[in-house]
Amino acid sequence: MEIEAVDFYYLSMPEVLDVGDGSQDALLVRVQAGEHVGWGECEASPLVSIASFVCPMSHSACKPLRDSVLGQRLDGPDDIRRIGDLVRANSLDLLQADHTLSGIDIACWDLLGRKLGAPVYRLLGDRYATPKLAYASQLFGDTPQATLEQARRVRAQGYRAAKFGWGPYGRGTVADDAAQVFAAREGLGDDGVLLIDAGTVWLDAVETAVQRLEALNACRVTWLEEPFVSGALGAYRALAARAGTVRMAAGEGCHNVHMAEQLLEYADLGYIQIDAGRIGGISVARRVAEMAQQRGVNYVNHTFTSHLALSASLQAYALSDADAICEYPVEPRQLALDISNEHLLPDAEGRIQLPDAPGLGITPNLDVLAPYLVDVEIRVQGKVLYRTPPLR
Amino acid sequence: MEIEAVDFYYLSMPEVLDVGDGSQDALLVRVQAGEHVGWGECEASPLVSIASFVCPMSHSACKPLRDSVLGQRLDGPDDIRRIGDLVRANSLDLLQADHTLSGIDIACWDLLGRKLGAPVYRLLGDRYATPKLAYASQLFGDTPQATLEQARRVRAQGYRAAKFGWGPYGRGTVADDAAQVFAAREGLGDDGVLLIDAGTVWLDAVETAVQRLEALNACRVTWLEEPFVSGALGAYRALAARAGTVRMAAGEGCHNVHMAEQLLEYADLGYIQIDAGRIGGISVARRVAEMAQQRGVNYVNHTFTSHLALSASLQAYALSDADAICEYPVEPRQLALDISNEHLLPDAEGRIQLPDAPGLGITPNLDVLAPYLVDVEIRVQGKVLYRTPPLR
Repeated sequence: MEIEAVDFYYLSMPEVLDVGDGSQDALLVRVQAGEHVGWGECEASPLVSIASFVCPMSHSACKPLRDSVLGQRLDGPDDIRRIGDLVRANSLDLLQADHTLSGIDIACWDLLGRKLGAPVYRLLGDRYATPKLAYASQLFGDTPQATLEQARRVRAQGYRAAKFGWGPYGRGTVADDAAQVFAAREGLGDDGVLLIDAGTVWLDAVETAVQRLEALNACRVTWLEEPFVSGALGAYRALAARAGTVRMAAGEGCHNVHMAEQLLEYADLGYIQIDAGRIGGISVARRVAEMAQQRGVNYVNHTFTSHLALSASLQAYALSDADAICEYPVEPRQLALDISNEHLLPDAEGRIQLPDAPGLGITPNLDVLAPYLVDVEIRVQGKVLYRTPPLR
Repeated sequence: MEIEAVDFYYLSMPEVLDVGDGSQDALLVRVQAGEHVGWGECEASPLVSIASFVCPMSHSACKPLRDSVLGQRLDGPDDIRRIGDLVRANSLDLLQADHTLSGIDIACWDLLGRKLGAPVYRLLGDRYATPKLAYASQLFGDTPQATLEQARRVRAQGYRAAKFGWGPYGRGTVADDAAQVFAAREGLGDDGVLLIDAGTVWLDAVETAVQRLEALNACRVTWLEEPFVSGALGAYRALAARAGTVRMAAGEGCHNVHMAEQLLEYADLGYIQIDAGRIGGISVARRVAEMAQQRGVNYVNHTFTSHLALSASLQAYALSDADAICEYPVEPRQLALDISNEHLLPDAEGRIQLPDAPGLGITPNLDVLAPYLVDVEIRVQGKVLYRTPPLR
């Protein structure tokens, strides 16, 4: 069969707030081939990703994604990987391409899984999916007291692991940051797994980050996530060498396999965090999961959006035993919950189990999404290159 | 003064061909602050970069570039760098942002230079600009015979260095590729500097590249450019170790300082090639030039578009003596020549001299650009976010 149509649906909360919450909008992608459909999601700026699919060609290595996707054969997993290679070659100089490809790749895997009646992880070679310990992923409170209360709440909800990130962390004094981390530990209890996310706030300033290590170690923090931007490999390595029992975590910014490989090789990470909706889809995420296993680095999903995106990111490391943890957004906006009919809910042990169902096992709930649909029109030389399609 | 307006002009040849020629379209950027203006150019997909400037915010680290640029103070070089840092933080998750920032950063430097009556290189701390040996940059011919004739032609035009790239190279047999390289050497003559550009054709396949080394060494090729994609650091290093006198060149794909730093640190390059229109502007290009000098790697511009873009990329390493070479597109489309009033022409020695004139020393020729102007309109929720402004 051939890919006959790729449709993008830009969804958004009525109001988008200036906070580090990635669940406020979404870009759903539907791929159609023959009588089959599959759904994916880009973790990306929706308008810019749409533009990268339809833009005019600039030259042979700066083509719109549609040129590498529409009309392509899609009979098996190798076709999905081949399409990814085509996109990377034909859109080499189109920076946004990897983010856009991500949703298309996910939709292709979903489509194949649905057609064959198998979960995506089985198409990837994993016989079954092991449950993962969900860590409740959320923003820091504005004050230590607010963080304390949030930590108590997620603990009361049954989560045995929690991550706090962004917000005020790293923007005030060393003492301010310490107070936040101590509050999180107190609220979560002594036996909870505590993770801290600095949201790249120190860019590549090692000494500024080092000042935070004492509190992180005192609070037995498992990982410090993104103290630096993804490319600051030497800064990661230098901090890791002085971080005691706290391990470094990073990787959500990776938009191709090479960036992830460099983090694995040069940054001395304890955990690599990959978002299938950014790195180029499940195909690339899976390659990174295999590389991480070979190098003894723990692989973890990055997800801060819908349960469709969550399922996609979990498929890449379904079977792995060593990586017994997964990111689970606990306070997403209503949009992120409304996107899908099915939801991945923690069991009594606080674990997430991928569904034993075709494709991603998560289907979009088109009936309720109309109020979120953003109306977009892109015209070039008077011709409509994109107009928001109806939800059907 | 404050940045009051940023205008984007998408220009294109009437027909864009499916060849590796980046001069077929252009994205000009005009920045206005008070009574001053400056011009820059993004080496990027124009429609996608425009979308990244005007798109709705997705969250606090995925904002449109206009949020970090409009209304900002612009009194000196530190303001330009500060605006770049703002863009990188506020658009961390907007992949296209670095390409869009590039043109804005260049325009800000041009504006400051015009205001102060000084060339940009002087604002960067270089007292004067040394002439650079222009290498005639062009695509391989479709056949060795065509390449031979091209090489003879540029030699006859006075160029003492030439680069051939893309086209059939790396896509046929080892013998086919060797015939192309021998033809280039024959046409250029024994004493010309010969450079070969593989255009990332082998992705990260070291052994495939190794097979080409014999011909490259036999023809005394100075550098082999981009045998692999930018991120394949280990592949570069492995090939460099077996490449005899041929050095590795790469870097045009870098879209931030960290990617360039990794190439310098791990890829064993002889030459790092930076496009100010992609890496985030002159500010970032200059940082890379300084890092390269410290590490003993030759810095070279990447330019395959207009003379405005050429001036921008040359400003970053104006004074450097060691880097006595520069990329010079010899067969650009008419658009790339028509963009500017002034042109950087080789002297009798085949050298290019940056103008001792305010800013970039290159001004856009608005009077002739109307036929190239691409009409774009982007509407979101019925509101026009972008419409091609008039050329004036």
